[in-house]
Amino acid sequence: MVDRDTDERAKTRADRLARFQPASGMVTPRFSGLASFMRLPVLDPAEAADQVEIGLIGIPFDGATTGRPGARLGPRAVREASTGTRALNHATGVAPYALAPCADLGDVPVNPVDAAETARRIEAFYRPLAEAGIVPLTVGGDHFITYPVLRALSAARPVGLIHIDAHSDTDDAQYGGSRLTHGTPFRRAVEAGVLDPRRCIQIGLRGSMDAADERDWALAQGMRILAMEEVCARGLPEVAAEARAVVGEGPTYLSFDIDALDPAFAPGTGTPEIGGFTTREALHLLRALRGLDLVGADVVEVAPSLDPAGITALAGAGIAFEILCLLAERVAARV
Amino acid sequence: MVDRDTDERAKTRADRLARFQPASGMVTPRFSGLASFMRLPVLDPAEAADQVEIGLIGIPFDGATTGRPGARLGPRAVREASTGTRALNHATGVAPYALAPCADLGDVPVNPVDAAETARRIEAFYRPLAEAGIVPLTVGGDHFITYPVLRALSAARPVGLIHIDAHSDTDDAQYGGSRLTHGTPFRRAVEAGVLDPRRCIQIGLRGSMDAADERDWALAQGMRILAMEEVCARGLPEVAAEARAVVGEGPTYLSFDIDALDPAFAPGTGTPEIGGFTTREALHLLRALRGLDLVGADVVEVAPSLDPAGITALAGAGIAFEILCLLAERVAARV
Amino acid sequence: MVDRDTDERAKTRADRLARFQPASGMVTPRFSGLASFMRLPVLDPAEAADQVEIGLIGIPFDGATTGRPGARLGPRAVREASTGTRALNHATGVAPYALAPCADLGDVPVNPVDAAETARRIEAFYRPLAEAGIVPLTVGGDHFITYPVLRALSAARPVGLIHIDAHSDTDDAQYGGSRLTHGTPFRRAVEAGVLDPRRCIQIGLRGSMDAADERDWALAQGMRILAMEEVCARGLPEVAAEARAVVGEGPTYLSFDIDALDPAFAPGTGTPEIGGFTTREALHLLRALRGLDLVGADVVEVAPSLDPAGITALAGAGIAFEILCLLAERVAARV
Amino acid sequence: MVDRDTDERAKTRADRLARFQPASGMVTPRFSGLASFMRLPVLDPAEAADQVEIGLIGIPFDGATTGRPGARLGPRAVREASTGTRALNHATGVAPYALAPCADLGDVPVNPVDAAETARRIEAFYRPLAEAGIVPLTVGGDHFITYPVLRALSAARPVGLIHIDAHSDTDDAQYGGSRLTHGTPFRRAVEAGVLDPRRCIQIGLRGSMDAADERDWALAQGMRILAMEEVCARGLPEVAAEARAVVGEGPTYLSFDIDALDPAFAPGTGTPEIGGFTTREALHLLRALRGLDLVGADVVEVAPSLDPAGITALAGAGIAFEILCLLAERVAARV
Amino acid sequence: MVDRDTDERAKTRADRLARFQPASGMVTPRFSGLASFMRLPVLDPAEAADQVEIGLIGIPFDGATTGRPGARLGPRAVREASTGTRALNHATGVAPYALAPCADLGDVPVNPVDAAETARRIEAFYRPLAEAGIVPLTVGGDHFITYPVLRALSAARPVGLIHIDAHSDTDDAQYGGSRLTHGTPFRRAVEAGVLDPRRCIQIGLRGSMDAADERDWALAQGMRILAMEEVCARGLPEVAAEARAVVGEGPTYLSFDIDALDPAFAPGTGTPEIGGFTTREALHLLRALRGLDLVGADVVEVAPSLDPAGITALAGAGIAFEILCLLAERVAARV
Amino acid sequence: MVDRDTDERAKTRADRLARFQPASGMVTPRFSGLASFMRLPVLDPAEAADQVEIGLIGIPFDGATTGRPGARLGPRAVREASTGTRALNHATGVAPYALAPCADLGDVPVNPVDAAETARRIEAFYRPLAEAGIVPLTVGGDHFITYPVLRALSAARPVGLIHIDAHSDTDDAQYGGSRLTHGTPFRRAVEAGVLDPRRCIQIGLRGSMDAADERDWALAQGMRILAMEEVCARGLPEVAAEARAVVGEGPTYLSFDIDALDPAFAPGTGTPEIGGFTTREALHLLRALRGLDLVGADVVEVAPSLDPAGITALAGAGIAFEILCLLAERVAARV
Repeated sequence: MVDRDTDERAKTRADRLARFQPASGMVTPRFSGLASFMRLPVLDPAEAADQVEIGLIGIPFDGATTGRPGARLGPRAVREASTGTRALNHATGVAPYALAPCADLGDVPVNPVDAAETARRIEAFYRPLAEAGIVPLTVGGDHFITYPVLRALSAARPVGLIHIDAHSDTDDAQYGGSRLTHGTPFRRAVEAGVLDPRRCIQIGLRGSMDAADERDWALAQGMRILAMEEVCARGLPEVAAEARAVVGEGPTYLSFDIDALDPAFAPGTGTPEIGGFTTREALHLLRALRGLDLVGADVVEVAPSLDPAGITALAGAGIAFEILCLLAERVAARV
Repeated sequence: MVDRDTDERAKTRADRLARFQPASGMVTPRFSGLASFMRLPVLDPAEAADQVEIGLIGIPFDGATTGRPGARLGPRAVREASTGTRALNHATGVAPYALAPCADLGDVPVNPVDAAETARRIEAFYRPLAEAGIVPLTVGGDHFITYPVLRALSAARPVGLIHIDAHSDTDDAQYGGSRLTHGTPFRRAVEAGVLDPRRCIQIGLRGSMDAADERDWALAQGMRILAMEEVCARGLPEVAAEARAVVGEGPTYLSFDIDALDPAFAPGTGTPEIGGFTTREALHLLRALRGLDLVGADVVEVAPSLDPAGITALAGAGIAFEILCLLAERVAARV
Repeated sequence: MVDRDTDERAKTRADRLARFQPASGMVTPRFSGLASFMRLPVLDPAEAADQVEIGLIGIPFDGATTGRPGARLGPRAVREASTGTRALNHATGVAPYALAPCADLGDVPVNPVDAAETARRIEAFYRPLAEAGIVPLTVGGDHFITYPVLRALSAARPVGLIHIDAHSDTDDAQYGGSRLTHGTPFRRAVEAGVLDPRRCIQIGLRGSMDAADERDWALAQGMRILAMEEVCARGLPEVAAEARAVVGEGPTYLSFDIDALDPAFAPGTGTPEIGGFTTREALHLLRALRGLDLVGADVVEVAPSLDPAGITALAGAGIAFEILCLLAERVAARV
Repeated sequence: MVDRDTDERAKTRADRLARFQPASGMVTPRFSGLASFMRLPVLDPAEAADQVEIGLIGIPFDGATTGRPGARLGPRAVREASTGTRALNHATGVAPYALAPCADLGDVPVNPVDAAETARRIEAFYRPLAEAGIVPLTVGGDHFITYPVLRALSAARPVGLIHIDAHSDTDDAQYGGSRLTHGTPFRRAVEAGVLDPRRCIQIGLRGSMDAADERDWALAQGMRILAMEEVCARGLPEVAAEARAVVGEGPTYLSFDIDALDPAFAPGTGTPEIGGFTTREALHLLRALRGLDLVGADVVEVAPSLDPAGITALAGAGIAFEILCLLAERVAARV
Repeated sequence: MVDRDTDERAKTRADRLARFQPASGMVTPRFSGLASFMRLPVLDPAEAADQVEIGLIGIPFDGATTGRPGARLGPRAVREASTGTRALNHATGVAPYALAPCADLGDVPVNPVDAAETARRIEAFYRPLAEAGIVPLTVGGDHFITYPVLRALSAARPVGLIHIDAHSDTDDAQYGGSRLTHGTPFRRAVEAGVLDPRRCIQIGLRGSMDAADERDWALAQGMRILAMEEVCARGLPEVAAEARAVVGEGPTYLSFDIDALDPAFAPGTGTPEIGGFTTREALHLLRALRGLDLVGADVVEVAPSLDPAGITALAGAGIAFEILCLLAERVAARV
Repeated sequence: MVDRDTDERAKTRADRLARFQPASGMVTPRFSGLASFMRLPVLDPAEAADQVEIGLIGIPFDGATTGRPGARLGPRAVREASTGTRALNHATGVAPYALAPCADLGDVPVNPVDAAETARRIEAFYRPLAEAGIVPLTVGGDHFITYPVLRALSAARPVGLIHIDAHSDTDDAQYGGSRLTHGTPFRRAVEAGVLDPRRCIQIGLRGSMDAADERDWALAQGMRILAMEEVCARGLPEVAAEARAVVGEGPTYLSFDIDALDPAFAPGTGTPEIGGFTTREALHLLRALRGLDLVGADVVEVAPSLDPAGITALAGAGIAFEILCLLAERVAARV
């Protein structure tokens, strides 16, 4: 009985895998057609349950940005750049679309002038996906959006976090009391009980700080911080090992702020900091995270108006593809 | 009986009109969602018959370009820019989506390295649409693509042409014999019998010529040329009147090469020529063409890589919207 | 007594005029030094009373933007571009700094993630200036900022408005209820009683609309709308005459949205519309407004990230200089 | 005897005309090959005598610039853009290379850090050309370079001047005594006796001035100034007529500062001023100058680093081609 | 006798070396003069035999590009950027122009709309140069051009290949049968017998693949692939050693696709892939190839329209200079 | 007495430290307000004595540039970018504004067309600051400006130099005798006796040279050169150790040419050279210089017009902040 069920499911799953394939660049040019994430089919999120296992979603919101804005235009730019990715990961050999049915689920209907309302809409958009077991890969938008996404994903239990970024984003409030900004999501998430701070690690922090408060608070909660200096001193293999040790085998969210990359690699972001990661390092770091129990991930803060050569969106798309490979392996392992 | 049929049809048509509405910027931000033409629904061309009456189509091909390339990236850039257009034409009061069901039919599957093969694919894509009575509004791509589109649309009879451009595009051959370039489509179309040269008018030609041959040939066929100097001397109302007189009441195609605009308004094109139209003039000229029997139209030669401020794609989208209003009025008048 | 007072005041005023002169480009290069508006001295607004009669102020806020953001970076970019303006208006012969003491009063301390709070801060910043009789020339920021500025300036009585723009900005609400956006300031201002709609004129509206509602509402209030088509048909002298007739001799505010200009002249703005004004037309129109009782003015929606050649900020600075000449003449006439 | 000489000369001239033809875009693509002016042959200036009658020359010097620099890169950028011009003027029917043998004579060997030395080098470069009767068409470089060119061309007698520009460039000195800047060439030229001020006209001045001094000086010398306001009020035909009246039938130099164009048409220049000419107006104005006794001409102040879309170099090339047609007609008329 | 011949030849060679020197930046500015490769003299290829030993050649063709086009504009942009290179290699001490007479031989006369015809023209252009013993250093153009170049150079015997690239370019066909694209040159070259696959090594491959076919085919032929992961793991010295081992002492061609570099270093290319080489690594790798029997080399896929800061052309020029040093040493060693 | 004096001074110093704090980004957005260096208070240099201990100064001069110009616009662009730096160095924990009162002292009043006169003005500007013990951190401008700064700072005794650059800048003369260019400052400074060549080290030289002369001269004076190849071979810790050894404990100047960075990290500079430092390496190198007796420093050659993404100014600001931390530690250690 069980066997037959499994067979049935496998059969259906094979059908779905066949259906949710990206358009091949050997058949039609990569620059042709509407730009969906990875040239994948587009699916109404209301129809995603029982169809796909990974959903690529845009959140075009930057109304919580305190620096240069523009990340609201990130999802479209990353979609466009992502049409250059292909089906087979050269480095790892992973073929994500052979492992998991994936689709572009469109954008969350944000309100660009209201962060609190947008947070509610994001949570409402993600909650049914989470309940259907669909793993979301989100493209922002500013980093604020991670907070409501975490609220939706962690309804059952707090999750761990691998957070790759130039900034800690654990401020309390700015401008005399604003608590919903792109500098505060992880503080809010810990306060809301959706992140387990002892299973959180922040990698790549650097630059300068207004004050030590945000760092001190994070450390006091038990979060692990690997500033860029420590990353350089210890090397990526050790960094990855420590990240794995911090999050362990529990459910974990992966958040990649594009400003983790050096401005040479990602100029198109609102708050760039010199001295960052190369894309090669970022890819190596991500590849060292295979096998974790990832429940979702995001790539945020791509601001195309500040990106005249388009390399930031390109990096965002490449990072997203690498993360998608991680997610697909994880999803396939669960089947 | 006839009355009832009409009622039925009207009822169905109202349903279809309700279905094929663009997403409103009052409900979701214009920068959100995948970028389809005008934020319209996307429809498989195979399902377009009996559904829509106007199809917006991209042809991402620039393999016939003899100058700076890049128009293959035009459809996506115009789609993106077109999401800023709204439902109601401020100047004319036309509400195109209330007049005709419209959809984005995607891109023709071109072969970027083979113009002849691509011409065949274009013709094959458009012919069933033409047979279904769907009026195509095409975004190129280089100007070569107009030739196969005309072949598909004019199977039954040659059509007239209003051709707004800096160049005549009636060369015979280049580089020792290449006859399928973006400098030759209208010569090929006349030779193929799909254009009636006596019902053709070219407006805005200017700059310099390699030789007088292309102009002399066009005039010898009976085509009317209103060079920019004549346009300036006579004024737009007279120009429009002459265009109307040349094409008369017969079926007419409208082709707008974005390089008709001055480089200040459309820098992003492969062969810009100073001294061109402003967008305001272009809009006035198009509005003066209301009521013609337009069987199709295109906007070509938008090359986004040469357009750092994005104003060329913006102009292309605005011109396309204005043309769409003309087409919608025409379609509605036929009902 | 009165005479002596007048003498004293004139003497003091001459001193102040001598003090508040811009740095000359014949002595130090225009690209040198910190970029203040027009290379004018910078003054703490708390010290402006009894010192200057015109205050140039930046409001770096774009948190009410519903399209592409970036106008928060406008004040700095316009300051930079304004260092190219000189002391003597070539066309009108007006030498504004000889007519009125002017200073750069810095930026309003906005909260980038809270429009309502920012509105309160703007109003609080402008109210004492208004009470001190200082005429403000503001550089935005998005168009929302005009609403709180009007609240501060019109405490005593509603004012008239000359509004040059591609859009009416008289929407009621967006996204299911947001009433404080850059699409709503003039509706809010009329509702608040700080604008007299019968003394309001909007010039240059064009493009497309989501619906006719915003226009119908404006007309119903008694506002005059001169859409771009009507502007073209009637010519600038008539347009200016009508504007003068609408606002009459009462106190009047002048608001210039940079998207009134065509995208060729002002690509760097969030919601560009093709078919707009040239800068030459804009200057002619402004020069035809000499002698009105202007109580303040603004130039808004310059978004530098979208302005690769910097011509939008340049246009904003040139428009601001031309308006400054109007204000200086008016201020001098009151002395 | 005379007849036979004439025949001989004509025969030789025909040979030279055949030799100095630009490469055709019908044979090799316009983007191919090293970029010489107009795709013309390159000739060592020492060999130009008895070979060519018009010499196109670059002066890559901007060391006299007081605003934003970069015009030193103008000659290469205009050469590149000029490869898009063809052999036959669409508007006037002039075929310049059929009228006069033309070549690219390369660049003057400037010293980028020494204006006085560069002036000597320029004069030394042009004097033998002038003595050989070769008419120079120069591409700058900043406007300072016109002064030494005039010194070389006017050794025998002062010449007249048609000067199209946003600025008068008749300052006396800047920064406490610097007299060789791009703001002073015409004052220096009048002082040196190489310009006849009563045969000088300046067209298109606008914007703002540090002081009225430069204008007053020019007027006092008898120079005619048609500021942009007067140009607009009177219209281009009258402007051209007045220019012709001012310079009369005597030898005349034509100097076109690219900032005469509006920044929308020519953003890439160091001192842009809004409210300028369109390229269409500039072309019309130039075409109205046919038949004058032009002894040389220049196009200056193209600064490619400030020209992200390349339209300023394009405008410079198009203006240069139009001027070349004027020069070729003049040269041919002399034969 | 032999000795005297050698002396004679040396004497002649010294003359030629003296003649073919680049213009020095200590005498004339590097931004002055027409932009030839490295500021070298320009020579008609028909006159190159017995004059120069290394020829720098442009092939402005991108008609085989399947991604973003624009490499047809590469030769001019690399020429422009190359004028910044000087005579003496800082790192290796090589002074190439003292070792071998070099000249810019101009561009191959391509047909931009016909890849097969262009291939014939390229082969015809290179064959006499090869027969004259002139070593070509080519700047593309898309990577397709390497195939006809190899056909010309390898008429006598197949050559080895060091191929530095992000992509294998060993596809069979695209779009239902197109076999002449920039994704296929090395497969075509092996099939044509002009490459010896066992003496071929590809370095730096990365990103994603449509399918494993192209890699599997290459490996099956005996080609060695060092993907970027392997490069990083083993280090550049080992990589260079392996490259030397694979090609051995036989005649070898060096092909450098600019997309081997990371997009941060070379954004201006049609198919960028994140995670690539730095320019420092590329230079180190090339310097480790001294002494090989190089018969020709190319740098391809520089697309200037996608390169707003010009660093891709700069990298292309720097790479070309480094390769030129390799070629000059080789040529000198043969004398 | 001494104690009390010290107390008094400490008290005063605390007051001054409190006064000279940058505006916090937690209170007002970083993009708001006029852009001063690091958002610090602006102070008239005539009032700087007894107020501040470190002065940030702009020198907007590029009139000695022999390549692409534009560094005159560097100070404003670096000011703008520097508003993103915060108060606390993430890596070193240094809080510079808690250690030393710092202010923006504005720009030196340069003469853009006269290098010799500008040198006099620079020296006159810096000498009183030096006499008042104020440590200057200068932002250029081209590298020529370092020579007059050194003349002012080294009046009492020659200083040592840590010079991080792609070029040696020790040429003798160019263009037949020009000795004041941005290629000569260190030769002039040694000749003038203000640099002690045996205490000078140049780090990061690379690319190509016109001739070995400049290097040979520098070595002959006893200067130490660590070319990029040697830097890579030995590693940054050894490089820093050697720099420390060369300059020893004596007074030392630190000069950072932004072209030391690779063009990927700093495209916006006049003479870029591939194969340069990453910003991460530059920061590591600077941090290894803590404790030296730095008497002043500069960051030069940022040319914003060549920097479309603004990352060069960003790098310049980040480097300047890191150097400021070094200077502040040094100043505090002296108290």
